[in-house]
Amino acid sequence: MTESATRTAGTALEALFRPRAVAILGASGRPGNPFARPLQYLQELGFTGGIHPVNPNYVTLRGIPCHPGLDVLPEPVDLVLMLVAAGEVARQLPAVAAAGAKAAVVFASGFAEVGPDGLALQRQMVATARDHGVRLLGPNCQGVLSVHDRMAATFTAALETGLPRPGDVAYIGQSGAVGGSVLSLARERGLGIGAWTSTGNQADLSALEIGTYLVEDPRIEVLTLYLESPVDGVEYARLVGRARELGKAVLVLRSARSGAGARAAASHTGAIIGPDAAFRAMSAEYGVIEADDVEDFVATAQALSSLPRAAGRRLAVVTTSGGAGSLAADQAEDVGLVVEPLTADTQQRLVEVVPAFGAVTNPVDVTAQMFRNDEVTEFVQVCRTVLADPGVDAVLVALTMVTGQLATRMAAGLAEVWDGADKPMEVVWLAGREQTAEARAMLRDQGRPVLDSPRLATRVLRALVRADPPRSAHPLPVPAAAPAALPAAGGVLTEATGAVLLDALGVARPAGRLVRTGAQAAEVAAELGGPLVLKIQSPGILHKTERGGVRVGVAVDAAATAVDELLAAFAGEDVDGVLVQAMAGSGPELVVGLTNDEPGFPPLLTVGIGGTATELYRDTVSRLAPVDPAQAEAMVRALRAAPLLTGHRGAPGHDLAAAARAIALLSSLAVELGDRLAELEINPLRLGDGGATAVALDFLMRLHPTPEPGGPRL
Amino acid sequence: MTESATRTAGTALEALFRPRAVAILGASGRPGNPFARPLQYLQELGFTGGIHPVNPNYVTLRGIPCHPGLDVLPEPVDLVLMLVAAGEVARQLPAVAAAGAKAAVVFASGFAEVGPDGLALQRQMVATARDHGVRLLGPNCQGVLSVHDRMAATFTAALETGLPRPGDVAYIGQSGAVGGSVLSLARERGLGIGAWTSTGNQADLSALEIGTYLVEDPRIEVLTLYLESPVDGVEYARLVGRARELGKAVLVLRSARSGAGARAAASHTGAIIGPDAAFRAMSAEYGVIEADDVEDFVATAQALSSLPRAAGRRLAVVTTSGGAGSLAADQAEDVGLVVEPLTADTQQRLVEVVPAFGAVTNPVDVTAQMFRNDEVTEFVQVCRTVLADPGVDAVLVALTMVTGQLATRMAAGLAEVWDGADKPMEVVWLAGREQTAEARAMLRDQGRPVLDSPRLATRVLRALVRADPPRSAHPLPVPAAAPAALPAAGGVLTEATGAVLLDALGVARPAGRLVRTGAQAAEVAAELGGPLVLKIQSPGILHKTERGGVRVGVAVDAAATAVDELLAAFAGEDVDGVLVQAMAGSGPELVVGLTNDEPGFPPLLTVGIGGTATELYRDTVSRLAPVDPAQAEAMVRALRAAPLLTGHRGAPGHDLAAAARAIALLSSLAVELGDRLAELEINPLRLGDGGATAVALDFLMRLHPTPEPGGPRL
Repeated sequence: MTESATRTAGTALEALFRPRAVAILGASGRPGNPFARPLQYLQELGFTGGIHPVNPNYVTLRGIPCHPGLDVLPEPVDLVLMLVAAGEVARQLPAVAAAGAKAAVVFASGFAEVGPDGLALQRQMVATARDHGVRLLGPNCQGVLSVHDRMAATFTAALETGLPRPGDVAYIGQSGAVGGSVLSLARERGLGIGAWTSTGNQADLSALEIGTYLVEDPRIEVLTLYLESPVDGVEYARLVGRARELGKAVLVLRSARSGAGARAAASHTGAIIGPDAAFRAMSAEYGVIEADDVEDFVATAQALSSLPRAAGRRLAVVTTSGGAGSLAADQAEDVGLVVEPLTADTQQRLVEVVPAFGAVTNPVDVTAQMFRNDEVTEFVQVCRTVLADPGVDAVLVALTMVTGQLATRMAAGLAEVWDGADKPMEVVWLAGREQTAEARAMLRDQGRPVLDSPRLATRVLRALVRADPPRSAHPLPVPAAAPAALPAAGGVLTEATGAVLLDALGVARPAGRLVRTGAQAAEVAAELGGPLVLKIQSPGILHKTERGGVRVGVAVDAAATAVDELLAAFAGEDVDGVLVQAMAGSGPELVVGLTNDEPGFPPLLTVGIGGTATELYRDTVSRLAPVDPAQAEAMVRALRAAPLLTGHRGAPGHDLAAAARAIALLSSLAVELGDRLAELEINPLRLGDGGATAVALDFLMRLHPTPEPGGPRL
Repeated sequence: MTESATRTAGTALEALFRPRAVAILGASGRPGNPFARPLQYLQELGFTGGIHPVNPNYVTLRGIPCHPGLDVLPEPVDLVLMLVAAGEVARQLPAVAAAGAKAAVVFASGFAEVGPDGLALQRQMVATARDHGVRLLGPNCQGVLSVHDRMAATFTAALETGLPRPGDVAYIGQSGAVGGSVLSLARERGLGIGAWTSTGNQADLSALEIGTYLVEDPRIEVLTLYLESPVDGVEYARLVGRARELGKAVLVLRSARSGAGARAAASHTGAIIGPDAAFRAMSAEYGVIEADDVEDFVATAQALSSLPRAAGRRLAVVTTSGGAGSLAADQAEDVGLVVEPLTADTQQRLVEVVPAFGAVTNPVDVTAQMFRNDEVTEFVQVCRTVLADPGVDAVLVALTMVTGQLATRMAAGLAEVWDGADKPMEVVWLAGREQTAEARAMLRDQGRPVLDSPRLATRVLRALVRADPPRSAHPLPVPAAAPAALPAAGGVLTEATGAVLLDALGVARPAGRLVRTGAQAAEVAAELGGPLVLKIQSPGILHKTERGGVRVGVAVDAAATAVDELLAAFAGEDVDGVLVQAMAGSGPELVVGLTNDEPGFPPLLTVGIGGTATELYRDTVSRLAPVDPAQAEAMVRALRAAPLLTGHRGAPGHDLAAAARAIALLSSLAVELGDRLAELEINPLRLGDGGATAVALDFLMRLHPTPEPGGPRL
């Protein structure tokens, strides 16, 4: 364990993780009582600062003086652990501050999580803490562990059997239960932990604020976050941006993806992109790795901590059994890794050691025959040869019944391979722990990753593939006339009112005019020439086609009657009129949507192939706005249905430049509108003239009202 | 362990699994030598029949007489374990037969797996065995274990630390290495094993033949198969059909899915359905469960053995942590389980025991508070209440830091719940083994399933959902004229030659005729009226559109010139002419394909939405032929894009009866053609007149030549 650096506790977060002295208010002496644990853990860890239990019922606790109150401590403390009931916390905070503390951990439950009364109690507690200059962790949390500083301010049961290996991974999450599981599994699997925090209700300090502190800690290289509730986009961007600058990895486990409730969206794209879409887009932007289960969270954290990253997706499988090798190859292809033959040179080298009935292409099957002398020298050589292949980015070793003494030798051999490797290697050991106990213990104590399933190993290796950092956008400027075209009142803009905006942006739309009578329609129709499209216009009718409010292919002569019929059909509603448009030529269609409903995140741009595929196949690509035309075009090309646009089965490809420009302009507009924008959708954006034009055939926009000067931002 | 029934060894397979006496040819006395293991295992298991080691170098082995040869055994043996080199086996087989054996296990490698010489050796060995009436297991295998009969004819290292729990699961697979892993993991996880077989090269006995024997064993309820190489459809159908009759579960792990090589298909459907598609369709037909990793193979086997099946997909989650609960719910939705609120009545009962800041909807979060007295009584009550909810089909219990003594009590409580449950319950314990060792050992010894991840648990529970047995087809009869319309020579049929077949079947096609000159085209065009479609016809041109061989929307006047141009463009090729067709009306399109390339399986029928979605989104549904019209319609309705046909966003739905009839007829024809059919595709089948007609707009068929009478079948 590293000796902690000079303690200064200059800030509240330093007070929380590296306090010079700690008071434990409400420390218990009863064995088995969770409130006895923090003192026990601090002593067992060898905390070098002052430890001051406070409880009027004891004179000493575990051999050190116990004090009757915070006001009689022998020295100032930086941190107070508050093991008191919910109703007591606020009352004690002045004394906490007076004892010198800049931070306190509130373990009690009975706050916001129990309802309105608890929420009021929580708010009052935070207000009191602010008044006294004390930052709070919790309430309803399980506290903090700083392994390198030998500091434990937690009662998690996960430490009862001992500490995890010290290491460079930090865990931060609201849930103390999930955090406890992670700590317990970390110990079992040899994952090295540096810091650990359960933030509970996050009444004051949030997981992101703590992450922003820990990311600066030179002893931390991997930040792992378990996030339950919505996070603020600005804070999240600050954290993951800084991590990227420092070259540190961020791994996120996000829960409550399902049943998160439909968003209040009028647009199709808004309805089909999942909850958390902006969060996920930002994660992708910054190279954050996502896990979706505690098991792969822990395994991926360990890989990030102990293995190099992979430069690409080319996987080699080395196995003691052809069967296990082909199962691993199947799993690899499922997650997008590529299992291709090794270079001829590598195969030539392998042929010299691998038995004739094995395999040297990929997977490499060394067969049990290689261990006829109970030695692993040749196997180590095989692993090194495969790792050295210039066409290999990562290696998966799948061991079957390598057991007993051979297993122990195998563990030592694998450790040698790992030490010399500049590419990631994961080991799957498909044998019970009983028959491989010594080997597994050896590797665990060295923090080496050994997994139980090819599925998990391939997912982890996929996560290790380093993503190219996305190029910065060079967004197109928004013509000044465009935002000026918008009504200050907010609300839903129809296509007719939106036409002004599209014109100001320079996004093409069909020629057309809004009419309020059949007679007007006849005039406009004559002017435009047929065939025509007629569309009812009403802020209250968002899905015109489904409501029967659209007529297509109407002849000039028939326009007046058709408009009268439409107006009659919607007589009782708040109708602006009917939009009479020239019918657009044929061509492939895109849908372009911008949603803006995750707090602190930039608007999210989503593109899809227009029409049914977007909905039925969820074939969309999303990115945070703004994007420039090149990025917009790349998004379109990333659709599964892109071959329909770029050339498919002999059909000619379309030029995407006009569409890309329109998409980029809309994304710039969305950013400029900021909080005013609720959502915006062009559905469809039709590519005409082989893609040389892109015409907005329908338009939907929802705005929040412009805030009064000085009033609250929405 | 069950005492074995009276031994009769009437058949070779009885001799293999329940021999009255066993000889071990080549038994070794050297400790650590794998050839010493079979004798050791037989003795340790308490095999009650005769055990006769044979090796001229020993007088006794492990305290019993060792014989110099098979010809001097004191009694006839049913089974001989042949621990001799590859080249020795055939030479010894006469003596094996003379010793009374009906079966022998050949462990040696050095046969087909090493190349042509080994294959020749293997063939010679099998021929000798046949001549002497001995059935062989292997070669290159790890043998047999029959736990209930206390019989081990294997040297797998997985038994070195002891036997798995006896139980009702049989494992059969080629790979001894994967089999060893399964055995080792079974022991670790408390999975009860009844029989175990590694079939190796399957030179004689195959996994399916052994499965067909074991499925009749009343002590086996769950057959688990690990299948590497292609299996014969007839044998597979016999096995899984019999298992379904007997109400026994079959679980399959199939490897080498990836890189299995492209099939030689001319049709689009043939190109996009995966390898093994007919195997998978048959598995679905018979309710076979598929695993895709050793981990879920073992976990699912245990669930099938120890839990009831689920009647539906409605899952309740019970957890000690809100975080773990919502992670589990996310995973459940990912695999198609449904996590919906419990009934009001259940929630009312739960409110009485679950703390206020917990949750009673679903997931049910009991909070750590429930264990304040270190008791699990209330938790047991919660589990029982949730299991009793009529809206719940299965329960997932997600435990976090329930450790130490509380964990042991929890294990006892969970065992009680399991005993009384008529629905499946899986437990995920997210805490290290060290802190839950006693609890886990207790549950393992009872064969109770405890898993490490919500992801795995939800996959296993999804596999337990009982599929409705598919209704038998009432296939449409094939008009006698249809097969008669086919050329005996085989090869590729173009659309023009296929027209006769479609007419005979009564499947509609566009009016049209094959022409060989522009002048002929002009005549036909005048007769049909425009606009027309022109298609080059050549057995060598399978993808006409991509090759530029199709003209659409050609006017009557332009037909002659266009046909001349087409003929000129393909001048150098083997062209039959140009098909001149009336252009069909618009309407949605289907693609219907039949492939027939997995040996012993019926032809595989695949339907998709026509056009690009089929390829780009792999939106297809496959079933074994034949299907009747109702089943064909159900296949179409199961497409993700089905809403396009059945009514979507206000568009009217189409009648699918005509399409269903055409699909059913084609599937009947495919079955009637049997081995003659290579593939057949209608792409597209266009729905016209609101679905009242279904017109085959293009047609492709590949036939094998009709076999000569008495000649080999292809």
